[in-house]
Amino acid sequence: MKNQTNYTMLCDFYELTMANGYFRSPVKDTISYFDVFFRDVPDKGGFAIAAGLEQVIDYIKELKFTDEDIAYLRSKNCFDEAFLEYLKNFKFTGDIWAVPEGTPVFPREPIMIVRAPAMEAQFIETFVLLSLNHQSMIATKSNRIVRAAEGRAVAEFGSRRAQGPGGAILGARAAYIAGCAATACVQADRDYEVPAIGTMAHSWIQMFPDEYTAFKTYCEMYPNNATLLVDTYNVLKSGVPNAIKAFQEVLLPKGITKCGIRLDSGDLTYLSKKARKMLDDAGLTECTICASNSLDEYIIRDLLHQGAQLDVFGVGERLITSKSSPVFGGVYKLAAVEDTDGNIIPKIKVSENPEKLTNPHFKKVYRLYDNESGKAFADVLCVHDEVIDDSKDLELFDPANPWKRKVCYNFTARVLLEPIFVNGEQVYQSPSIHDMKKYCAEQVDLLWDEVKRFENPHKYYVDLSPKLYTIKNQLLENVPH
Amino acid sequence: MKNQTNYTMLCDFYELTMANGYFRSPVKDTISYFDVFFRDVPDKGGFAIAAGLEQVIDYIKELKFTDEDIAYLRSKNCFDEAFLEYLKNFKFTGDIWAVPEGTPVFPREPIMIVRAPAMEAQFIETFVLLSLNHQSMIATKSNRIVRAAEGRAVAEFGSRRAQGPGGAILGARAAYIAGCAATACVQADRDYEVPAIGTMAHSWIQMFPDEYTAFKTYCEMYPNNATLLVDTYNVLKSGVPNAIKAFQEVLLPKGITKCGIRLDSGDLTYLSKKARKMLDDAGLTECTICASNSLDEYIIRDLLHQGAQLDVFGVGERLITSKSSPVFGGVYKLAAVEDTDGNIIPKIKVSENPEKLTNPHFKKVYRLYDNESGKAFADVLCVHDEVIDDSKDLELFDPANPWKRKVCYNFTARVLLEPIFVNGEQVYQSPSIHDMKKYCAEQVDLLWDEVKRFENPHKYYVDLSPKLYTIKNQLLENVPH
Repeated sequence: MKNQTNYTMLCDFYELTMANGYFRSPVKDTISYFDVFFRDVPDKGGFAIAAGLEQVIDYIKELKFTDEDIAYLRSKNCFDEAFLEYLKNFKFTGDIWAVPEGTPVFPREPIMIVRAPAMEAQFIETFVLLSLNHQSMIATKSNRIVRAAEGRAVAEFGSRRAQGPGGAILGARAAYIAGCAATACVQADRDYEVPAIGTMAHSWIQMFPDEYTAFKTYCEMYPNNATLLVDTYNVLKSGVPNAIKAFQEVLLPKGITKCGIRLDSGDLTYLSKKARKMLDDAGLTECTICASNSLDEYIIRDLLHQGAQLDVFGVGERLITSKSSPVFGGVYKLAAVEDTDGNIIPKIKVSENPEKLTNPHFKKVYRLYDNESGKAFADVLCVHDEVIDDSKDLELFDPANPWKRKVCYNFTARVLLEPIFVNGEQVYQSPSIHDMKKYCAEQVDLLWDEVKRFENPHKYYVDLSPKLYTIKNQLLENVPH
Repeated sequence: MKNQTNYTMLCDFYELTMANGYFRSPVKDTISYFDVFFRDVPDKGGFAIAAGLEQVIDYIKELKFTDEDIAYLRSKNCFDEAFLEYLKNFKFTGDIWAVPEGTPVFPREPIMIVRAPAMEAQFIETFVLLSLNHQSMIATKSNRIVRAAEGRAVAEFGSRRAQGPGGAILGARAAYIAGCAATACVQADRDYEVPAIGTMAHSWIQMFPDEYTAFKTYCEMYPNNATLLVDTYNVLKSGVPNAIKAFQEVLLPKGITKCGIRLDSGDLTYLSKKARKMLDDAGLTECTICASNSLDEYIIRDLLHQGAQLDVFGVGERLITSKSSPVFGGVYKLAAVEDTDGNIIPKIKVSENPEKLTNPHFKKVYRLYDNESGKAFADVLCVHDEVIDDSKDLELFDPANPWKRKVCYNFTARVLLEPIFVNGEQVYQSPSIHDMKKYCAEQVDLLWDEVKRFENPHKYYVDLSPKLYTIKNQLLENVPH
């Protein structure tokens, strides 16, 4: 049912010029390792939520240059005919490891590793980054908003302000994985099983002779889904009284006590308290109050702190664009190559900007959980063939401040990245989106509250193994100057 | 060739609950008028650039509920069977007017007007807004960046940080309309004729034994497209000297003098001045210098102010997400309905938030150009049947301050919105994207510099005709309290 298109041509032109170049050189068959990682958490938060893997899997499986694509590329007059011929049967033959969707992740650790011949590994860069960056960003933002709501339902209402169709549909998907209860987007429900909800816009009320008739008509048509928008004219003088009258005349005689109102303007703390009292006084204690109108985690936190009587939050533009932090800066960097004997040669990327320095080598990531509290307390980047034995004590040290050391004991070590493709064959089946959502909530629960603060969170440890640290420093000493 | 999917299901759930409700009520056939307008210019700029119309046209033409869609909707247990039956042949039968893509537009004026039976007009809301909001936002941001570059080429490089596939592809389209010279996104070229460009990533250099070999190999393969990325190790000590050597050894013997380098990190002013000198000293005066790395209009302006020697700007995440202002707040509001005799009844929407007040009625928008300077100086919203006779003097007044009046003479009045659909039939053919780009540049040239300032621009006049002003005030007096 999914509208997934063939996105082979959603690449950067330089991936094709490089591929054509590799094709004509000995580099062609060089097995390369690329890491996907990010440097900063959006909104200066303590962690991000990984998402977008399933669309990467679909993309890899659908990779195909059509005859039209080849003709288009030929018209550019810069690609060799032999290369274009090769593209006709192009597919991905390498290996991919990745963290499952919904996993909390931290800066500078790989969330995906690609091992493939240089041409293939380089080619998929744009779509891999686009998918992981976009959905991880929305998942990260949504998780913040869901946590601010402290158990109340958050519904994603942002399609109309999304950045393109995928911004809306895949954004709703990521929001659900990260904890949202529902979406307004019908296609996200049809294609990805994100429950879609909705009742009425202001225009519904305006189409009828008066607000009461509009409400009554709606209650008669949808007695089991009557959430009435009460701010078209005046919330407390007109909207809420008319809603109460409609509920009492249509729903209560049917024995229906579940209903709702929605506030979309005005001061939500003041109006929700007044409306709650009016509803309760009318005996409508099960009537929920939903708020929308430019909400985000900060406003929701403040509203609840002030005692706003709100049960559901409809969050639109600030979620679906991650408005306060609308770029997720995942990058795709070469970490190693294999020589012709299959030896792995670690590679490092330096830069005029020191923060762009990479962690070299084909790596493995462990997450360490304290056995007493169950909480995650550090991630460790190792060389691919290292094994952390969690039956023994382990000394960790901060790679930025190597004199800061700490001995860990009584912990459990878990390998974070799972194999997704092996030799081009998919070996991983994505869980259902509902299981991803459950897994995400569980994993976020395993973080300390200190890491979950919205502002100035505790910096979670992402350390290097002594072996990897040594290799990194050796490479740095040999960088050309 | 376009990958345009059927986006019928990219709607909000409430559009379907309302449609089902209208279907069962006399409202069903009520002819309704909806305006698309926005309230604030992104980045507090003086104007926006309208874009995204062509995708709305495609969407309207492709509207179709498939059997799978109907089955999905049936499973929700809230839609009438007769309504689901009706959806099988659902199509848009109404009228649409819109400003052409690339037009500078201002807050509170309609950029699109939809006239259709309530069910149809309401149903298309989400996709119409999504497309116009997204592309107008990217066009507006891109135009700012292009103006900051003062005639130098700006290339859109942001696919990997875009919010979903459409964010990348359609974002590149909007960026080109608004003045960008090129994109990195291959699919935007294949599908929308936005010229795609690109040469190499850092990994190209890392794949070779050394930087010089990587450069030389590239120059040999692409002597006519050799823009070398010079910051993998050290720009001034390694990158530029190696690039000069490769140009001299490979390109100059072939008589090729056009080439380029790209800086992607470090201080771009300092490095570009030093690199320019080194290139000029080597006789490579035609070698261009391209800069990338988190650029936007503010940084580009500052770089040029400091005398940076840059010829081309590659702009990524801050353009493709409109990072500093990532939401374009276009709304879709009921402006009028027709009674059974075909009389147009204006509608107004008030709100707890006064800034959400709408301009009622089926409207016409004129743009007034001064005949002496050629510059646009005001837009006027009129009732649909009013005509501004530009052979006569015209008194304008500010609707927010009606005592501020001004008599205009010697001007030309141009109707801004063109008919796009009439009775469901497309009557408008989008110009080529290259003509849109040209039109956009021409129209922006017709704005006063005061309106084009990045900060604190002069507020362009968007006035109401006396007739419309009177109708609006009469409606406000009769709002239910």
